[in-house]
Amino acid sequence: MRAARYIGAGSIDVVEVDPTDPGPAEVQIEVAYTGICGTDLHILHGAMDHRVRAPQVIGHEMSGRVASLGADVTGWSVGQPVTVMPLRWCGRCPACRAGNQHICERLVFVGIDSPGAMQTRWTVSADLLVALPDALALDAAALVEPTAVAVHDVRRAGLAVGETAAVIGGGPIGVLIALVSRAAGADVTVFELDAHRRGVAERLGLRVVDPGAVDLAAFVDDWTRGAGAAVAFEVSGSGAGLSTAVATLAVRGRLVMVAIHNEPRPIDLFRFFWRELTMVGARVYERTDYDRAIRLIARGDLPVGELISDVVPLDRAGDAFRSLGAGGPVMKVLIDCAPGGGR
Amino acid sequence: MRAARYIGAGSIDVVEVDPTDPGPAEVQIEVAYTGICGTDLHILHGAMDHRVRAPQVIGHEMSGRVASLGADVTGWSVGQPVTVMPLRWCGRCPACRAGNQHICERLVFVGIDSPGAMQTRWTVSADLLVALPDALALDAAALVEPTAVAVHDVRRAGLAVGETAAVIGGGPIGVLIALVSRAAGADVTVFELDAHRRGVAERLGLRVVDPGAVDLAAFVDDWTRGAGAAVAFEVSGSGAGLSTAVATLAVRGRLVMVAIHNEPRPIDLFRFFWRELTMVGARVYERTDYDRAIRLIARGDLPVGELISDVVPLDRAGDAFRSLGAGGPVMKVLIDCAPGGGR
Ligand SMILES: [Zn+2]
Ligand SMILES: [Zn+2]
Ligand SMILES: [Zn+2]
Ligand SMILES: [Zn+2]
Repeated sequence: MRAARYIGAGSIDVVEVDPTDPGPAEVQIEVAYTGICGTDLHILHGAMDHRVRAPQVIGHEMSGRVASLGADVTGWSVGQPVTVMPLRWCGRCPACRAGNQHICERLVFVGIDSPGAMQTRWTVSADLLVALPDALALDAAALVEPTAVAVHDVRRAGLAVGETAAVIGGGPIGVLIALVSRAAGADVTVFELDAHRRGVAERLGLRVVDPGAVDLAAFVDDWTRGAGAAVAFEVSGSGAGLSTAVATLAVRGRLVMVAIHNEPRPIDLFRFFWRELTMVGARVYERTDYDRAIRLIARGDLPVGELISDVVPLDRAGDAFRSLGAGGPVMKVLIDCAPGGGR
Repeated sequence: MRAARYIGAGSIDVVEVDPTDPGPAEVQIEVAYTGICGTDLHILHGAMDHRVRAPQVIGHEMSGRVASLGADVTGWSVGQPVTVMPLRWCGRCPACRAGNQHICERLVFVGIDSPGAMQTRWTVSADLLVALPDALALDAAALVEPTAVAVHDVRRAGLAVGETAAVIGGGPIGVLIALVSRAAGADVTVFELDAHRRGVAERLGLRVVDPGAVDLAAFVDDWTRGAGAAVAFEVSGSGAGLSTAVATLAVRGRLVMVAIHNEPRPIDLFRFFWRELTMVGARVYERTDYDRAIRLIARGDLPVGELISDVVPLDRAGDAFRSLGAGGPVMKVLIDCAPGGGR
């Protein structure tokens, strides 16, 4: 079988490896698709070298079918469509004890801190498996993981039907947040500088604004009838995006911090005081977010397939990473992990 | 009658003025005590000159008795003990329409944006009156307003019984937040650099730490058994205090932004993301906070009298402001507004 590995120095190779037999509590999955995520690009660029031990198979946004079961595994059957919730927690730290296992202080993120899904067959602990409905296409199912991120972000916002929501940054996660917010009955605007991304969001029927081309204050005033947005999702990771998010919010508005800001950012705390704003951090997902993401995709409320720019066979994963890493007009690229996939 | 007025240039004078007869919907109050607040010191130092029109009587933390009623006023009787909730809202802006009148976009703060209580008799709109229990001492009642601030801050935190709460800054508001948090069943620590303030908090039975003298991380670890604090109140207004608050919080911890930070502050947004922290702004109070503050003080749960460092007659208000403005070992100073008060 084949496996795509991060080998350091900005490179991915694809090599022949032996499949790993499942241990007693493990399951071997025949991987269908694995998406390339922003985090995978950070790995490619060496930013996660303190966590990823090259050479390592990466990838955590996947779909597939159960191929074989460990001796002690029950409740799963060979051929069943599945995805994986790639979190392993310790169960003993203060976060776990408080019920926040998904942000365990010793969290293992599978595909970063341990081997990932970008291979023909992937062996994981059976308790990470999440069942997929038979009717759900496996390419769309590879977007369950990022959709669960969006569902979690919207849940952290406490977004209510009829509220206004500004999404700052229209990459894959931003667009998914916008779609989930719309499905929650919110009135959504996406703010995005990149023309290609704006085009994708527009084709999905979303209201999209180029923050470089409009008077933002006037736009928000007009959109929200002078109130400001009830919720802003900061998905851009930029200081300018953060400022836009804070400036956009209504009295008692909620800012959800989705993006990773690796340096401290100056923030207008007077406005937080004056308008009684709230900022909440949102990281990964809980199991309930996975279940909701699957339900929303399966019943057609989220046209996630529209986000797939390209499907590339596993043997060309290196090229896919190189072109994604160079930027360009793409949203989500899937790696087809089936033997002979895409050919 | 006498009135203490901000006359600009860092000065307060006390002059003889005629009392204002109440209009049809107004009440004239015989003022008992008016507290000097941090905001009053900002006014003294000229920082509020865009809102205060010198010469103006200031003061908004008060107690007194109804002296006379306007023609249309019902439900109040002469001699009844009262305080004032010094907020006037427009009723029409987006904040008011959303039920957040206390942070109305055109809020008038009585005593800043309009004449205040530091005078023998004060005439205000009857709908600002709040009844006091007969048994409540009028000096303690002058602390209802800052106590309502503390009640509001604790409510914004969603503080639950048994949780840990860090109060960063042990001035009058910080100590009141600590007392209200303790009354709410929380396990409280006050962080304060000033020895006098630490002494006041200690005499009230609060756990107090000098952040300049201990290893903060080790202290918090020990105090919270490695979890971090569930809630931190930022009452210091300093960048260092803010950093302490953020560093102190547990996974899913809540930071309440009480202090005014007039400049943008760098904030560790990665930690907000990673630990799913929440920051909420908290400003003034709602009517329910006033009612709770009165109930807590009246039934003896909050020994607010211990915060009163000094009571100064109205004719010496100028001296009181001067010595407070210079700093020094005081918490709360009350102005005795009765004719011949304190003499
Ligand atoms: Zn991802
Ligand atoms: Zn844990
Ligand atoms: Zn005050
Ligand atoms: Zn208003």
